[in-house]
Amino acid sequence: MSFGDVIVERCCALAGVSEEPGRLTRRYATPAMTRANALVGSWMREAGMTARLDAAGNLVGRRPGLDPDAGTLLLGSHLDTVRDAGAFDGPLGVVLSIALVQRLREEGVALPFAIDVLGFADEEGLRFGTAYLGSRAVAGTFDPALFDVVDDDGVSVRQALLGFGGDPAGIGTASRRADAVLGYVEVHMEQGPVLEDRGAPVGVVTGIAGATRVEVRFAGQAGHAGTIPMTLRRDAAPAVAEIVLACEELARATEGLLATVGRMDVRPGAPNVVAGTGIAFLDVRHADDRVRAEAVASLRQTAEQIAAARRLELTWDVRLDNPAVAVDDRLTARLVDAAAGRGLAEVRLASGAGHDGVALAALCPIAMLFVRCADGLSHHPAESVSAEDAAVALDVLYDFTRALGSSSA
Amino acid sequence: MSFGDVIVERCCALAGVSEEPGRLTRRYATPAMTRANALVGSWMREAGMTARLDAAGNLVGRRPGLDPDAGTLLLGSHLDTVRDAGAFDGPLGVVLSIALVQRLREEGVALPFAIDVLGFADEEGLRFGTAYLGSRAVAGTFDPALFDVVDDDGVSVRQALLGFGGDPAGIGTASRRADAVLGYVEVHMEQGPVLEDRGAPVGVVTGIAGATRVEVRFAGQAGHAGTIPMTLRRDAAPAVAEIVLACEELARATEGLLATVGRMDVRPGAPNVVAGTGIAFLDVRHADDRVRAEAVASLRQTAEQIAAARRLELTWDVRLDNPAVAVDDRLTARLVDAAAGRGLAEVRLASGAGHDGVALAALCPIAMLFVRCADGLSHHPAESVSAEDAAVALDVLYDFTRALGSSSA
Repeated sequence: MSFGDVIVERCCALAGVSEEPGRLTRRYATPAMTRANALVGSWMREAGMTARLDAAGNLVGRRPGLDPDAGTLLLGSHLDTVRDAGAFDGPLGVVLSIALVQRLREEGVALPFAIDVLGFADEEGLRFGTAYLGSRAVAGTFDPALFDVVDDDGVSVRQALLGFGGDPAGIGTASRRADAVLGYVEVHMEQGPVLEDRGAPVGVVTGIAGATRVEVRFAGQAGHAGTIPMTLRRDAAPAVAEIVLACEELARATEGLLATVGRMDVRPGAPNVVAGTGIAFLDVRHADDRVRAEAVASLRQTAEQIAAARRLELTWDVRLDNPAVAVDDRLTARLVDAAAGRGLAEVRLASGAGHDGVALAALCPIAMLFVRCADGLSHHPAESVSAEDAAVALDVLYDFTRALGSSSA
Repeated sequence: MSFGDVIVERCCALAGVSEEPGRLTRRYATPAMTRANALVGSWMREAGMTARLDAAGNLVGRRPGLDPDAGTLLLGSHLDTVRDAGAFDGPLGVVLSIALVQRLREEGVALPFAIDVLGFADEEGLRFGTAYLGSRAVAGTFDPALFDVVDDDGVSVRQALLGFGGDPAGIGTASRRADAVLGYVEVHMEQGPVLEDRGAPVGVVTGIAGATRVEVRFAGQAGHAGTIPMTLRRDAAPAVAEIVLACEELARATEGLLATVGRMDVRPGAPNVVAGTGIAFLDVRHADDRVRAEAVASLRQTAEQIAAARRLELTWDVRLDNPAVAVDDRLTARLVDAAAGRGLAEVRLASGAGHDGVALAALCPIAMLFVRCADGLSHHPAESVSAEDAAVALDVLYDFTRALGSSSA
């Protein structure tokens, strides 16, 4: 079986490791993540690597280098998913990096530096509403205040991590020394329509858009839907509706701005009860941090106006605020060279999605390679990457890694 | 202790009779209902009544009349509750009616007709999702198909009723002959803010509003919030937002119309995923069925326009469609007279919530008296009725009953 086939097959096998029957949902520090780590760990060992869980719950596969002073190249991606996810967002980069190590081994390629393949434990942020728990620990930027964030069942990050086999008190041991790391290179499916549109199997990422995520909460007064006159209501549901539409309107009017409400809720949540509480999660992205900050400020003002007009209490909780992230010019040029060496047309594109590289950029140079996906679909069970494109991405990563080894030897 | 104090105290005592520690939940035909019936039955006997369980599990307290041919006045309300309920929704009408009988006895008032105080076993419908099991049996409109409905534990109505001491096979014995019943008069807490707003302890109900409940579902295309351009989205979240606001706008513009979205959801429901599916439950109520039907038709048209404009698929699923129920003019006029005789300002109001009277109206004339509650709160542990207002309601019911006795004597 070709490496391309193996990569796709393994992604599909991982898609069966879920918290829910019939669809893929794999949140941070759940039993499903434990099973996924066991499976991926077995593939790491098959490729000659050691595999361990770090203090933050990341899976770390290691291939030592010839020269203990040559440092470590970090590869990988994340193993957690969104709800009702597809097979490739995250796992592709992990299993492709393992395939790289396997191929280096099979072809007897010795490298001066070590390779660590990282399976990050929380990139999507589905369980706790805060992404990059895993990669921030590796970057040494994990905020201990996050330990007290709770999930929908009232379980804290600390409790979840302890139950998962991690070590909250020793979270610092998951972090790397900047001078011991050569860089972080992540292969990821594009999650958009650009490469397909250009007829290119892979593209090199020019930067990652900044993102703000806000939990907006309106608190009013619950009551009986049959008895509270419209004029006396302090209903949180239409307040949520107004902020949802304000997001859409602003994004449509602002070049390059994306603003989304992908999760919203009203409580107590019975059809015959006026909502006492309404919650909307805003997701705002732009390549220019200034434009994004202005958009968020504008939406906050709108939310305040909505709350005031409806006699509601507003809570504006910024859960994530990631600036746009630059990729490293030198590492990126190496990826471009590797792709050109395989005769591929040069395609560069920005990433509208965040990635673990956002967190890793605080530690080391980063670069990213995108792989074409079908119909721009992602975060969807139908998302798809072909074995042929995975094989091309592996070729590029292989040549990149060998060239890095030659230059650093 | 005054009757007002006794009524409130007994409601509070009943609030401690629950299936769950720490909060009040009392579903149909549960051990908690058996304990509640035992307590209420003891109060009935203390007031000189006989007490028995009917075939449907309703508690029936009886005070005979002087004239066996004068028929029976039905009083009462329900003894089951919602989850995490307050003390007054239901029990108030039962214990107040018992207090009425006690007062008639203490004051030596003889009446030609009998009085039955009914403690209905299932008005809220929490256990089986279908309300009025008890009062429908009394009205003779119990649908035997309901016996096979099962609760969350797979227990059927038939099994539950058998275990409760009821008699599924003999359900017909719980029903009354229309010519033997004078009418049904129910005292119930308002569950809304109107009486408090008007400064009135009680109000006479002009009718029970009809209600339509619709599950509206918009289906679009899920996708990554960071990669799908705004112009290419088929996002279900703003569609939900638009129908929520359309409900509110229509209700505000239509006299007497209530329209509520108390439950809504978007899926897959992750903050960084464009919603592929959006669901809103509409609850539309009006005392005039024609106005309600027009409102529902208008909202459906709006939903169709929203779906078309956003390239979404619409599903419009009517889950409940209950016509308005008229109260009896003569009985209601007697309640108004009784209130006026106590020097109370005349306050009439529609009931936006359903009550056992909806079922009883198929059997006999009905009338309802609402009692002021604090802050319009109901279906909530903090719901509250004052002893003073309960005493006023008792006065009105007492005068009503005596006047009915004089006229029928």
